[in-house]
Amino acid sequence: METSLLKRFVVGAPMPLSLARHERLSKTVALAVFASDALSSTAYATEEILRVLVLAGSAALGLAIWVAVAIALLLIVVAISYQQTIHAYPNGGGSYIVARVNLGPTPGLVAAASLMIDYVLTVAVSVAAGVAAITSAFPALFPYRVTLGVACIAVIAFGNLRGVRESGRIFAVPTYLFIFTFGALVLTGLIRYALGEVRPLTETVVHPATTLSGFLVLRAFASGCTAMTGMEAISNGVPAFKEPEAHNAAVTSRWMAGILAVLFLGLTLLAQAYRVVPVEHETVVSMLGRALFGRGAFYYLIQAATALILILAANTSFAGFPRLASLLSQDRYAPRQFAKRGDRLVFSNGIVILGAFAALLIIAFRGDTHALIPLYAVGVFISFTLSQAGMVRHWYRERGAGWRWRLLINGAGALLTGVVTIVIAVTKFTHGAWIVVLLVPILVLMFQTVNRHYALVADQLSLEGYGGPPPIRHTVLVPIGDVHRGVVAAVQYAKLLSPEAKAVYVETDPAATRALEEKWIKWGMGVPLVILTSPYRSVLTPLLEYIDHLQEEQGEVRRVVTIVLPEFIPHRWWQHLLHNQTALLIKGALLFRKDVIVTDVPYHLAH
Amino acid sequence: METSLLKRFVVGAPMPLSLARHERLSKTVALAVFASDALSSTAYATEEILRVLVLAGSAALGLAIWVAVAIALLLIVVAISYQQTIHAYPNGGGSYIVARVNLGPTPGLVAAASLMIDYVLTVAVSVAAGVAAITSAFPALFPYRVTLGVACIAVIAFGNLRGVRESGRIFAVPTYLFIFTFGALVLTGLIRYALGEVRPLTETVVHPATTLSGFLVLRAFASGCTAMTGMEAISNGVPAFKEPEAHNAAVTSRWMAGILAVLFLGLTLLAQAYRVVPVEHETVVSMLGRALFGRGAFYYLIQAATALILILAANTSFAGFPRLASLLSQDRYAPRQFAKRGDRLVFSNGIVILGAFAALLIIAFRGDTHALIPLYAVGVFISFTLSQAGMVRHWYRERGAGWRWRLLINGAGALLTGVVTIVIAVTKFTHGAWIVVLLVPILVLMFQTVNRHYALVADQLSLEGYGGPPPIRHTVLVPIGDVHRGVVAAVQYAKLLSPEAKAVYVETDPAATRALEEKWIKWGMGVPLVILTSPYRSVLTPLLEYIDHLQEEQGEVRRVVTIVLPEFIPHRWWQHLLHNQTALLIKGALLFRKDVIVTDVPYHLAH
Repeated sequence: METSLLKRFVVGAPMPLSLARHERLSKTVALAVFASDALSSTAYATEEILRVLVLAGSAALGLAIWVAVAIALLLIVVAISYQQTIHAYPNGGGSYIVARVNLGPTPGLVAAASLMIDYVLTVAVSVAAGVAAITSAFPALFPYRVTLGVACIAVIAFGNLRGVRESGRIFAVPTYLFIFTFGALVLTGLIRYALGEVRPLTETVVHPATTLSGFLVLRAFASGCTAMTGMEAISNGVPAFKEPEAHNAAVTSRWMAGILAVLFLGLTLLAQAYRVVPVEHETVVSMLGRALFGRGAFYYLIQAATALILILAANTSFAGFPRLASLLSQDRYAPRQFAKRGDRLVFSNGIVILGAFAALLIIAFRGDTHALIPLYAVGVFISFTLSQAGMVRHWYRERGAGWRWRLLINGAGALLTGVVTIVIAVTKFTHGAWIVVLLVPILVLMFQTVNRHYALVADQLSLEGYGGPPPIRHTVLVPIGDVHRGVVAAVQYAKLLSPEAKAVYVETDPAATRALEEKWIKWGMGVPLVILTSPYRSVLTPLLEYIDHLQEEQGEVRRVVTIVLPEFIPHRWWQHLLHNQTALLIKGALLFRKDVIVTDVPYHLAH
Repeated sequence: METSLLKRFVVGAPMPLSLARHERLSKTVALAVFASDALSSTAYATEEILRVLVLAGSAALGLAIWVAVAIALLLIVVAISYQQTIHAYPNGGGSYIVARVNLGPTPGLVAAASLMIDYVLTVAVSVAAGVAAITSAFPALFPYRVTLGVACIAVIAFGNLRGVRESGRIFAVPTYLFIFTFGALVLTGLIRYALGEVRPLTETVVHPATTLSGFLVLRAFASGCTAMTGMEAISNGVPAFKEPEAHNAAVTSRWMAGILAVLFLGLTLLAQAYRVVPVEHETVVSMLGRALFGRGAFYYLIQAATALILILAANTSFAGFPRLASLLSQDRYAPRQFAKRGDRLVFSNGIVILGAFAALLIIAFRGDTHALIPLYAVGVFISFTLSQAGMVRHWYRERGAGWRWRLLINGAGALLTGVVTIVIAVTKFTHGAWIVVLLVPILVLMFQTVNRHYALVADQLSLEGYGGPPPIRHTVLVPIGDVHRGVVAAVQYAKLLSPEAKAVYVETDPAATRALEEKWIKWGMGVPLVILTSPYRSVLTPLLEYIDHLQEEQGEVRRVVTIVLPEFIPHRWWQHLLHNQTALLIKGALLFRKDVIVTDVPYHLAH
């Protein structure tokens, strides 16, 4: 029943809990699993900077490299900051935990809400950009980008439902292929630049649509900050590393930051050198690849690697989101279903929810990366800020060796990311960031509502100080409309439940009653038959009134009434349509009635 | 619960069965209720003849009057035929009953299927033509004809859900208004014609699109035969008349046929005299009204009367369809829900189904009368033919006074309508009649399938020759996941059901088991606790295996296992989302298991 063939085929055989500890990642596999998000953003971050600057004309594009340098510096500060977090919280130092432990529950929930939003956006943006890499190489596929995007999300989600180590293996090849091809692209480009072999891609001069203002440069900076999304993935996922977890995670984190900074700066430099001007239907990376290698095998390899790492980068969120949801769930801020591991030891519900929301975003924004970018990164930077601020408090409380120095590093991180958060929210507010600014408090409110509910339920169900249930009396009733084998079976069952069971018949036609009474003498098994009259032919009202009457009669002791409903189960589903749903009606009417319990006695038909 | 305020507002207060006999119709009201369908078809029948003939050019329009005369003769034969049916079957001589009793079950079902299809089409065609009368007068409403049509159907359906006498009152005014205004139109037109005051409406000459063939004339005849739809309504509804039912019904039927023939012939004559050529956006009746009275008050009165009688003509079907469905249901050919009278003593389910299908037709055919006409009348003529043929058999068997003469009349009717049926089906086949030709056997097959099912169920539930149920033993199990007040209540209840009740716990974590066992000592009320282990963390599989084990143990005597499920009911609906649906899962898995009965013990939470 629980184990359907389809489910087995899609997610594989169930695993016993004893296998859980072995599902750990080596550093190389972990880099592929957790760094794909951060690294892959180099595929679009440079382009997003250029797209903003070009509004002030092609002359303004020269500022891109300075914007990129600023982002790279920020990246290094944040990376160092997070190194400290990994060591301080080896059991998983996600922003939620760090903020909650050090700053209190509400800042923790704000961090969690921000991160959850950005996990969904990471999936949507990465998949959209991955599909853009494909359609740059094969323009004929452009009209199908929404379908392609949704299909990709489905594939990743199913991969994750099968379990984490298998996911790791799937992602190792494309991540390393991406590092290799992008490295080759940057290296080849820079060498040719050094040799003076550079030929500008275009001589087109774009005229300014707006003046070059500080606000525009800040908006370009804000758009480029998408390069930093995904940096927190490793600190959230420390327990997934092989032992020693914290050490391995920190090393992997350094590698990730280094590769990210090199690729991002290199690509921006190349774009500047080749005077790339962003266009509608082709990505900047695709233009650079064509310029350096022509439309040959290596160009297609670059596009393939870009598409693969981007589409699979979404996987970082498929590790992070369900983990965060399960943490919230354990703390009773999210529905408890998120804390439940599936047959394959993964948090299936979180995976499914994440996939569904990301697919909705792809559909709503028609698979357009640039339309999604303004919503992106706000959440990440809120959580960066809260996490660093939490670490400041942490060092101040702990006061271990060198705590002042550590506090200073995290303090600088908190200050910087805090300022950047405001810059991103303000410069992109009207372009879509307002949605996130609105959504964070709504989510926090939802978390708190859920939490309050669980507390109330626990309180109402608690046995602490409970005097035990009051004594009860029991009456069993069998409502019948006819006498047949199904009714006989129900009456036999009712007699098992109580020797004082009664059958109840609602009379709508006195002639029918006489015929029924005769049958009852033969088949009633000695159970008394109560006949209720109904002037309005309603079966329900007299029955409800009779139950009321029985329960009013009781004195001090509560009377529980069990309604035994004879119900024959047709052989095929459509046959249900051919029968009066009186049983359903009775169940519906009694559903919320206190001290009434309804029991179906099914009589299975063979044809 | 059953009685919602909305329902009361829409359909009125429930009525006791004792009121049923008084819901009878006088002849004048009955003419309004049953004749509106037949009479109203004069509003479009002439036009449908002209629309076919004009394909052979405006010169061919002169044939219309001869086609109309042929139809009027046919109408008189059918009317006399039906007079005999009314007297022979005073309890309602619908084609279904006459064909079934005299020709056998399958011809009866063919008649029933044909009639049901035409009831739906009557509603759709009448409403579409009624809306056309409105949009002829107010062309600005033309774009809203689908919405108007669906709204009309909804109003009629609700009127009928309130009960039959009130419907009669609603329909008397428009029917008599229609007879008066159309009579005045025909009379005025003919007098002016006699006085030589005729001025042709148009001098336009339409050139032939096709040659004038016998086939085309037959198609015009077939289209005009829609004038005869609804003639069977009175013979179906004899029991709704005041006593003496048969006499009153026959008188009403004669009046109906006479008025119908006069109006139809008169209108066709007028159309000829004024040389009307059909156009797209205005009906022929509207054109004649304008020509004779100008766009004055009387013109608008004609349009209003046309619209009202047409829209309300649909009401004939709302009397006939549910009645036929209830007859089929009583004979176990249709779901038994159709035989059940609602609070207001009408067959609510038939009314709702008819309204829904007619609305679907209006939507599918975009409210266009002319698109629906080819589907129309095939069904009616099949049922005419079967009904007359049944009467021939009836007289042959009965051989009362003058039986030869009666047989001859019905024989002529059967022959004529049989030939017309073939003419209609053949000439309109490619224009849409094929749908009906296909649908009739499908419906007959459905009726037979339903009948076979009911027979099988009755057989399986029958107590005839039944030796009584085999003896059973009883085990009560309470699956628990925790110990709280809800569980305590469920255990208390389980003890009432059986002194040997057991609680069952599926262990997924041995540490949790120990804590649970300690709680159980205090709160278990002496009920033994069975602990099942589960290596794959599935709660369901071990439980199912345990039930299997219990039931295998039994020897000769069947063991019924009752599963008592503690379930707390949250205060608000959304709170259900916050809890594991383990109870639902267990219920689903045990739903089709023999000798297992699942009982929820609800524990209602207050917040």
